[in-house]
Amino acid sequence: MSDAYRKLIPRLQQLYRLGGAMSLLGWDQEVAMPPGGARTRAGHRGALAGIVHEKLVAPELGSLLDDLAPAMEELDQIARANVREVMRMRRRAVRLPADLVREQAEAAAMAHGEWVSARRDDDWNRFSPYLHRLVALKQQEASFLAIGDEPYDSLLDDYEPGARTATLLPVFAALRRALTDLLDRLGDRLAENGSILSGTFDISRQDDLNRRVLTAIGFDFDQGRLDSSAHPFTESMGCGDVRITTRYSTDSPLSGLFSSLHEGGHALYEQGLPSDHRDTPVCQPVSLGIHESQSRLWENFVGRSRAFCRWLAPMLREVFPTHLDELTVDDLYRAVNVIAPNPIRIEADEVSYNLHIILRLEIERAMISGELACDDVPALWRQKAREYLQLSITDDRTGALQDIHWCTGSFGYFPTYTLGNLYAAMFWQTVRRDLPDIDLDLAAGRFGDLLGWLRRVIHSRGSMLTAGDLCREVTGEDLDAAPFIAYLEGKYEELCGT
Amino acid sequence: MSDAYRKLIPRLQQLYRLGGAMSLLGWDQEVAMPPGGARTRAGHRGALAGIVHEKLVAPELGSLLDDLAPAMEELDQIARANVREVMRMRRRAVRLPADLVREQAEAAAMAHGEWVSARRDDDWNRFSPYLHRLVALKQQEASFLAIGDEPYDSLLDDYEPGARTATLLPVFAALRRALTDLLDRLGDRLAENGSILSGTFDISRQDDLNRRVLTAIGFDFDQGRLDSSAHPFTESMGCGDVRITTRYSTDSPLSGLFSSLHEGGHALYEQGLPSDHRDTPVCQPVSLGIHESQSRLWENFVGRSRAFCRWLAPMLREVFPTHLDELTVDDLYRAVNVIAPNPIRIEADEVSYNLHIILRLEIERAMISGELACDDVPALWRQKAREYLQLSITDDRTGALQDIHWCTGSFGYFPTYTLGNLYAAMFWQTVRRDLPDIDLDLAAGRFGDLLGWLRRVIHSRGSMLTAGDLCREVTGEDLDAAPFIAYLEGKYEELCGT
Repeated sequence: MSDAYRKLIPRLQQLYRLGGAMSLLGWDQEVAMPPGGARTRAGHRGALAGIVHEKLVAPELGSLLDDLAPAMEELDQIARANVREVMRMRRRAVRLPADLVREQAEAAAMAHGEWVSARRDDDWNRFSPYLHRLVALKQQEASFLAIGDEPYDSLLDDYEPGARTATLLPVFAALRRALTDLLDRLGDRLAENGSILSGTFDISRQDDLNRRVLTAIGFDFDQGRLDSSAHPFTESMGCGDVRITTRYSTDSPLSGLFSSLHEGGHALYEQGLPSDHRDTPVCQPVSLGIHESQSRLWENFVGRSRAFCRWLAPMLREVFPTHLDELTVDDLYRAVNVIAPNPIRIEADEVSYNLHIILRLEIERAMISGELACDDVPALWRQKAREYLQLSITDDRTGALQDIHWCTGSFGYFPTYTLGNLYAAMFWQTVRRDLPDIDLDLAAGRFGDLLGWLRRVIHSRGSMLTAGDLCREVTGEDLDAAPFIAYLEGKYEELCGT
Repeated sequence: MSDAYRKLIPRLQQLYRLGGAMSLLGWDQEVAMPPGGARTRAGHRGALAGIVHEKLVAPELGSLLDDLAPAMEELDQIARANVREVMRMRRRAVRLPADLVREQAEAAAMAHGEWVSARRDDDWNRFSPYLHRLVALKQQEASFLAIGDEPYDSLLDDYEPGARTATLLPVFAALRRALTDLLDRLGDRLAENGSILSGTFDISRQDDLNRRVLTAIGFDFDQGRLDSSAHPFTESMGCGDVRITTRYSTDSPLSGLFSSLHEGGHALYEQGLPSDHRDTPVCQPVSLGIHESQSRLWENFVGRSRAFCRWLAPMLREVFPTHLDELTVDDLYRAVNVIAPNPIRIEADEVSYNLHIILRLEIERAMISGELACDDVPALWRQKAREYLQLSITDDRTGALQDIHWCTGSFGYFPTYTLGNLYAAMFWQTVRRDLPDIDLDLAAGRFGDLLGWLRRVIHSRGSMLTAGDLCREVTGEDLDAAPFIAYLEGKYEELCGT
């Protein structure tokens, strides 16, 4: 091990330990913090973010990286990945002026309040100038970072390191054509409302059920927690402490359960990271796209499969005997696979979900490039919703004002959701080849082989490979929409009995 | 405002914001963290402690304080207190070598595990060498700090700034004589076991009751939380976020409730600190002794008064009608004022509690001065327990191994418990003079005037005055055991009907 690398390690550990403390500040804010603590919490987060920035731009770190840069080939794979990642983090920190970062934080704080009231009052014009300010600052950010071939690349790269817009566009275009075509063909044949699952479902029984299911798929409650919050999320404080939240509804046991499966998938990834390298970049998730592939794999490819429903249906009958004692596997399978385009992204079915994302990607990319004025967003949104989703949207509350992402300055985040779905389908195709008994396993509630496979080929690799390299290594292919399209077409044609 | 002071403020804010984040790490560890998160959490805490130390010893901070030192008289009271406190913090940080601090943390971590198993197996000899190591490191700490007139002063000063052993000893000696004398006189006349409150008490009803009582005394749940933990404590993340924990027992509703009153007293102090000066030293509690005075005032001077029992008894009857529908005010008053010396400090009554503390102070001071070898602690403990508490102790589990303090390196902490009781009695004497209707108020559940008084004369002053100056300002007197002795004698003579 080179001397410079040996000196780098404690600096990396310090950064990730501070990052873990920041994660706890975030988790607590959503789960436990009393309302009066908001201003103080902003101070905690600001102080820690300031320290992390200070440590990243420190000249001593720069010297170490300068020493390491010419000798990367002499490092082993782990060390090379650690150096590559910290160089990336430092580059962002060094290139972005502190004033810009502060202005962005202030603009986002102002925009958030306006977005909340604009959404409540369905008033795009109130939000538009704040969005305009955020877009202008993001354009500045992109020009300082100067990553890739167009301004949007610099923003995308923050969430999906190495991803480039020009590479995604043809993949997403093929996906869009296939999905709109599939929606056309399906029509309303799978639009039943799942009313077999109606009633009032006791929250504490739902919580017991979710804990049983999470334990079964491999979530380790000695190294994590499940709580409730307004918006379900996963947060890792570091090795051994990975927390998820869900949101229960008394109307149905499925919304909370599928949230838990989704966040549980994220958590299994985090719990499987290579803890031998704790507190360094290689022990981190490699990208949001890969992260989302793990949540979607458990939520959709496992959770919405007929095999999984075979296992789940008897458990639902047992937990809710008064409501569900007649629930069949087929009832459940149809209920979790309803196709009914919804103006709200987070309520969308598996087919239309990615059309929501593509719409957002096209709109935010046009804003960042300067081709689309913020005032013109709602009209374009409605036009694309009609074209892609066959939805007639008449208010912005259920249209361009529905998501929180833009008002927090998170431009470039949306595509990672679709990347997650595409990666998940590619991984699932490989799973089915490597584990031929997977359906029998799922139907029997045996998830160990699947989790073991994911641990071996994905989780335990952390950030050793880039997302693109990981995909190639696991599946033998570059990013491709075909497996996802084939998965959906196969499933829904079977469901329609065609 | 001087230029140097203006530059000092953001540095103070950064220190306290980092401190607030550290408080959350501590709270979460006791309340929410899964067991697997321990090692990661140690990393978070170590990283933040390292940054705080780095910021305290930074030469830039030293230059600012050097500029301010000769001009302290030109600063206003707030600024002067802020500079005084940060000088104190910096002095500790600069004087203690980083190696010593690290060795102490390691020795404490090792000692903790040994203490747990030594206590379980009642095996002092296993713990003794670890204690010896901790004492040796504390002796080094004292010689580096060189505060006051004897080594123990340097340790005491960390918890009770400005307190000196030589000042405390005569006060504590008078207290010891009066308390042993009072115990002699009372004999077992108040040793009834409070069996009127026996039964199995539903935890969720207890929780509701505790929230009602805490709300009544003024705890603001919009700026705080109540949770359960193995050992009740109070933790403030900063202004607007003050959290307490309690521990419920199904055997009695009183242990949880009096824990909540105790921690609630701590929390009312924290919630009343001067938030105009948030994130600077003057917005901090001035000392552990003053902090404990606030918890003891609410737990004992309010909570164990006949007037408070008048208000509480009907509420207990209402909440637990099947168990307590015959509970009288007198039953309750006697039940919360049982006198029965107990070998365990945290279960001690109001009279014997401070004898436990004086015993510990004498023993730890002798260890630090080098007069007492660690191997000889149990014998001296038993001798003093017989002499002061009339207790015959035959095992160390309920003797010298009972407390966690020494194995965490907290020497000099114990006296602050007794200081809290003495300050509380002095404040209470003043309250009774300033608020002549206090008994009527307590009996009617009106706590607003009392809280308003505490807010005005104590809480809102934060650390503007030292503890000693605050005591003189509020009561007109220096620290004195007489009010506490008079309070106990009056109360227990009345209870015995003499």
